[in-house]
Amino acid sequence: MPRYTAPLRDLHFVLHDLLGVSGQDIAGYGDLDPAFTEAILTEAGRLATDVLAPLNATGDREGCRFENGVVRTPAGFPEAYRKIREGGWIALDCDPAYGGQGLPYLMGTAVGEIFVAANMALNMYQGLTHGAYSTIHHHGTDAQKATYLPRIVSGDWACTMNLTEPQCGTDLGLIRTRAEAQADGSYRITGTKIFISGGEHDLTENIIHLVLARAAGGGEGTKGLSLFIVPKFLITEAGGLGPRNAVRASRIEGKMGIHGNATCQMDYDGATGFLLGDLHKGMRAMFTMMNEARIGVGVQGYAVAEAAMQNAAAYARDRLQGRANPSTNPAGPADPLIAHPDIRRSLMDQRAFTEGARALTLWGANLIDRATRQGDAQAEALVSLLTPVIKGFQTDKGFEVTVAAQQIFGGHGYIEENGMSQFVRDARIAMIYEGANGIQALDLVGRKLGADGGKAIMAFFDLVKSFCAEAGADPRMAPYADPLKAASKDLQTAAMHFLSTAPKDPQSVLSGATDFLHLMGHTCLGLMWARMARASLAALDAGTADPAFHNAKLATARHYMTRHLPATALHLARITASAEPLLDLPAEAF
Amino acid sequence: MPRYTAPLRDLHFVLHDLLGVSGQDIAGYGDLDPAFTEAILTEAGRLATDVLAPLNATGDREGCRFENGVVRTPAGFPEAYRKIREGGWIALDCDPAYGGQGLPYLMGTAVGEIFVAANMALNMYQGLTHGAYSTIHHHGTDAQKATYLPRIVSGDWACTMNLTEPQCGTDLGLIRTRAEAQADGSYRITGTKIFISGGEHDLTENIIHLVLARAAGGGEGTKGLSLFIVPKFLITEAGGLGPRNAVRASRIEGKMGIHGNATCQMDYDGATGFLLGDLHKGMRAMFTMMNEARIGVGVQGYAVAEAAMQNAAAYARDRLQGRANPSTNPAGPADPLIAHPDIRRSLMDQRAFTEGARALTLWGANLIDRATRQGDAQAEALVSLLTPVIKGFQTDKGFEVTVAAQQIFGGHGYIEENGMSQFVRDARIAMIYEGANGIQALDLVGRKLGADGGKAIMAFFDLVKSFCAEAGADPRMAPYADPLKAASKDLQTAAMHFLSTAPKDPQSVLSGATDFLHLMGHTCLGLMWARMARASLAALDAGTADPAFHNAKLATARHYMTRHLPATALHLARITASAEPLLDLPAEAF
Repeated sequence: MPRYTAPLRDLHFVLHDLLGVSGQDIAGYGDLDPAFTEAILTEAGRLATDVLAPLNATGDREGCRFENGVVRTPAGFPEAYRKIREGGWIALDCDPAYGGQGLPYLMGTAVGEIFVAANMALNMYQGLTHGAYSTIHHHGTDAQKATYLPRIVSGDWACTMNLTEPQCGTDLGLIRTRAEAQADGSYRITGTKIFISGGEHDLTENIIHLVLARAAGGGEGTKGLSLFIVPKFLITEAGGLGPRNAVRASRIEGKMGIHGNATCQMDYDGATGFLLGDLHKGMRAMFTMMNEARIGVGVQGYAVAEAAMQNAAAYARDRLQGRANPSTNPAGPADPLIAHPDIRRSLMDQRAFTEGARALTLWGANLIDRATRQGDAQAEALVSLLTPVIKGFQTDKGFEVTVAAQQIFGGHGYIEENGMSQFVRDARIAMIYEGANGIQALDLVGRKLGADGGKAIMAFFDLVKSFCAEAGADPRMAPYADPLKAASKDLQTAAMHFLSTAPKDPQSVLSGATDFLHLMGHTCLGLMWARMARASLAALDAGTADPAFHNAKLATARHYMTRHLPATALHLARITASAEPLLDLPAEAF
Repeated sequence: MPRYTAPLRDLHFVLHDLLGVSGQDIAGYGDLDPAFTEAILTEAGRLATDVLAPLNATGDREGCRFENGVVRTPAGFPEAYRKIREGGWIALDCDPAYGGQGLPYLMGTAVGEIFVAANMALNMYQGLTHGAYSTIHHHGTDAQKATYLPRIVSGDWACTMNLTEPQCGTDLGLIRTRAEAQADGSYRITGTKIFISGGEHDLTENIIHLVLARAAGGGEGTKGLSLFIVPKFLITEAGGLGPRNAVRASRIEGKMGIHGNATCQMDYDGATGFLLGDLHKGMRAMFTMMNEARIGVGVQGYAVAEAAMQNAAAYARDRLQGRANPSTNPAGPADPLIAHPDIRRSLMDQRAFTEGARALTLWGANLIDRATRQGDAQAEALVSLLTPVIKGFQTDKGFEVTVAAQQIFGGHGYIEENGMSQFVRDARIAMIYEGANGIQALDLVGRKLGADGGKAIMAFFDLVKSFCAEAGADPRMAPYADPLKAASKDLQTAAMHFLSTAPKDPQSVLSGATDFLHLMGHTCLGLMWARMARASLAALDAGTADPAFHNAKLATARHYMTRHLPATALHLARITASAEPLLDLPAEAF
């Protein structure tokens, strides 16, 4: 059975050595001194190790049961959810005006990694709830906020997001669910939504659905969509639970993974809904939720990989198989797997990704705090550019790393009871939901890259440039800064290619979208590794008490620079290759 | 529910346009004219589509049941196996002296692809049986051959291979199963074997286990191992079934995939066994079986990918989602997925791999026929070099392609009932069993590369060189031959690096083993695509009746050359990078 321990040492490093959070001029960051963040993350780690992780494998095996519209989550889930709620974890980064603790989003993200790694399926119930919280907080009326937020923040009520229908996933313009205005200002919602995570369950007394639907007068396509609040139980004047609303789960899906999370088909049969935000501006409101959810899925990308890696490393240290040269266990029957260079190479690949992605994601969360708490438009533009990378690149790579971790176990990795298969099956969904990764790539090249005249990507290049210029003063930084410079140059060439080719040959450009996503992902991780190398050199110069940690950081940074960052050249070659062969075949030829 | 249609057109192309099989000077190849191969493959395709493929999803869902040592395969499996047997498919490429049809191994491989693609779990029962057939055929006494082969060839008896034990998978030197010589010349076999595919089932009246065990006097490690025939039911003098032998399945594993195949733990409790081949030379005999099994697993790599791709392509043609530019369905609510360049890019990636791997594998099978039927030592050395590539590279890439095919389905790909998850879960095992892919890489760089002074790899380079020289006469070949030349140069540089670095720094070399495997895999597929381009140009020049097929080949070849073959540079960069950061960390740091 797999185990999980929160990577507190590395989280500390990212928060304090890399980001220097307590010194940042963001409201609330002043409190984030090492002792405080350590206390929070240690407590989260304890809950993760003791309560959430032990339910991960059992939740996978048992799955959710569905009977007559009622969903029973796996044994132990309701109790564990109660502990999450009572520990105040749902309220962590919520608005104190509604009972939240007001900590930065950054801390919510760090805690989120720990909970996801321990039990992704269970944590999804609160992850989506948080997205809905933000949407209501941002777009709701004062009355709506007063009605819903306190009970959401307390964890008494969970939330869902309802976009997908049988005929449309990506293409929300095809949504058919109707919203009919009623005399009392409410709406009657009718239609079928599918793939609704946590659409029904036994963890909370109420479930608040946010539903994208079509109200009269909005026109066709996405322009006609509005967002509605549809509670499972309607709320009384006094704020208590009223009558059952006409929304019901009509089935749950048998999925490849995340078995502990109920994925429901929801039937809205004239359910009572309340407009959230402006009429016919549902997409805008939904994007608040989606952008946050995308960062959350990016966290899943490396959090599950981290959990899988921890178990692979433990297995590689223990399992004796074959002789290495030199032997590290000459007195034993064989050497541990980790003594074999190919195994070690794989573990280093896994480590370079998970630590790099952690740094990138927490930097992204930091930028979100800067945008929301300081109103910094440049930070907002930058994190908006990074969001598809954090979601798309990190989940592609996270899956790859999880598969690599499973591979370390040989045949034992294929046996369900050893738990590595579950990590792979769970990790797979992150590449698909909240916008499949192909959509993330299109969002990046089709929307984010050229937004505002390309300002955000220019800012990113400036950031790399000034970092490299600064690093140039320290010759020890050359092994990190030089490859970063080369990668950034590849990214620039690719970006120029996109911006210049797009107007005349959109098909060709779009065929390189996924490669651009990965080129940019590699460059982002290259930047993070170069920054981490600088932070570790500084720590060593300052006589850190933990030189082994920082030397390992430097070695992992060199591993990333020499073995992973050169992938940018391959992606660039693909991007600039003619799309002619790719577009040549008629559809019938496939 | 997924469907499968045998790729008869492409198989015809590989056999006749690419390999020109009927003109080859190999015993039995003269019969392989297009009408004959077409008839066989059409018949195999019919069985695959009508009988095997419909049981694939149900076999996955139902799995094997285990009760008191008895295994029940999923509903329909026994009947389908009877049809495979009665169709003479097991006997296809077996020796006529024992009831076989004597067709080349090449044809067995082509048929194997079709059956694996339709139902991998079911086909494994006969796949391993074939490996045991070859081992007994090669190493057995005349009496053993007469006793076992006719009933194996007829399919009345199935076979297994028993290597792995709880304490050893890769490192067979740690095997503990004992073989004690008896006065009558037989042996008493005692020990536990795990992960035995088809160790027990209800498809055949008897199961013949080939068991690696340790007999007295052989010393430690792999040198002390011998191979034994251990029938489930002992055979009477008359050749019928005698008493039940002391071998029993004690559990079956719950696996990530291939649920229809029973993976058993086998307990040998003083079972009667018969030495196969020479005493203490068990490894040599086992390698006959393993090499064949490795080619078979390489087939699984692209066969499952082919099945997944067919379903992804069908979905991409049907599913309407989003608007492409230009639109291909302006009158409809949206364009089919296939109109979107990123989807098409993915389908082209899938196609370039499956068609390339099919060509490489059938070329490998062709070389095996040349080696075994003509005694061609050079062909044997070359296919021995290619075997780890066919197994390791093709299953890594095959899994990647299967995941890409699943991705085309978006959220629907994650739902078990749509069948794409099963392809992914099934494909995963091929990277692990018959020597995990890391072991394939070590076999390639540690054994095959330097074997006989590097003769085989030199022959491979000569082959590429003379191909490119010939192709130079036709300027239309430049887009195919030039990238191949560059890739081959990368491979040469890497090979030289390995051969020169290995003696002084083995750890560093071994850390690049997996990259070398992939570098070589890409180059091999590059060679196949350049050859296929030449064959299609020749067909077009000759006024083929099917220009669309050949133009699609050329486009796919260009896609491979521009988007995939450049990966060799990345692998070379990793191989020649210092392994210092990778070896730097103490094991405890992981």
